[in-house]
Amino acid sequence: MSRSEWTVESATSILRRDPWIEVFEEHIRLPDGSRVDDFYTVKLPDFVVVAPLTGNDELVVVTHYRRGVQAMTQSLPSGFIDPGETAADAARRELLEETGYSSDDWLELGSYVVDGNRGCGVEHVFLARGARRVAEPSSKDLAPVTVGLVPLVEAREQVSRGEVRELASVSAMALALLKINAEAEATPGV
Amino acid sequence: MSRSEWTVESATSILRRDPWIEVFEEHIRLPDGSRVDDFYTVKLPDFVVVAPLTGNDELVVVTHYRRGVQAMTQSLPSGFIDPGETAADAARRELLEETGYSSDDWLELGSYVVDGNRGCGVEHVFLARGARRVAEPSSKDLAPVTVGLVPLVEAREQVSRGEVRELASVSAMALALLKINAEAEATPGV
Repeated sequence: MSRSEWTVESATSILRRDPWIEVFEEHIRLPDGSRVDDFYTVKLPDFVVVAPLTGNDELVVVTHYRRGVQAMTQSLPSGFIDPGETAADAARRELLEETGYSSDDWLELGSYVVDGNRGCGVEHVFLARGARRVAEPSSKDLAPVTVGLVPLVEAREQVSRGEVRELASVSAMALALLKINAEAEATPGV
Repeated sequence: MSRSEWTVESATSILRRDPWIEVFEEHIRLPDGSRVDDFYTVKLPDFVVVAPLTGNDELVVVTHYRRGVQAMTQSLPSGFIDPGETAADAARRELLEETGYSSDDWLELGSYVVDGNRGCGVEHVFLARGARRVAEPSSKDLAPVTVGLVPLVEAREQVSRGEVRELASVSAMALALLKINAEAEATPGV
């Protein structure tokens, strides 16, 4: 073990509501030998967020009420990874269920621990290019979802103005925009 | 009330460990009249993340052990907002405490609800340009922190390769890079 690592001497589950949330109280020994007896980690389901881009350079977005934001909110398609499902499978399924769109051109944009201290699940980000509508949305989400298209240039402005309210969506939009920018720089004039 | 909003009929605190975490079990009535009796929201402290850029186009970063990632991790300076403190004040304080750097050129890059369903606190993102070292770091964090400089062009590669492990840091880096890109496009040749 690296001398910089922490030792979790015990972790007690102090709240568990499957499959939604579990909270642990941990007793930790730090590298300098001191102890922390009230460190809390939170287990939440891992999830995917998809930035779906049509052939006309539009993002496919969903608008729905979001309890965490306490408002109608424009987001990217997203959802929990089902048991036994890969992140890539979940991304394809959520895109189809939430928006009725499908894509054959998928790019992984990384996996990120939501909370560096407490965990809180992992976000898997995908860029889906050439997205096209193939079905009616069939979302089983709690809130009615409206599907819309936002031109990429407008999406860039929304991000720049801080109008995207949820960290999961704004992070995926920003990562997708950076990837698209970088590719445009690498192929000037195309 | 908009017909699209949810009504929280009751919210019961089922776990509380001040000032770190509080979990609520909510009974919710949806716009279609149906009820959800096991909706969980999580109250975590709001926090700031700072993308500090030196006059030499380097990002000031911190490397430390992160329990959520279970590894030594390169992050941006960040921390909780103290009671009575504004997000901007917390950003200045955390930058100085964690890195010993200071800046007179601050730009807010937005505030984002960490979890669109459950809350989990709000991330406030800042870009601090012209960052310069003015003091020794004086962090009171649990883990020893190493301060480093990463050229902006390398930071862009780190983000592109998915090497930044924490959502809080990668979102702030991506937002800062987009802002810097947009400004460079608006002033070609500069």
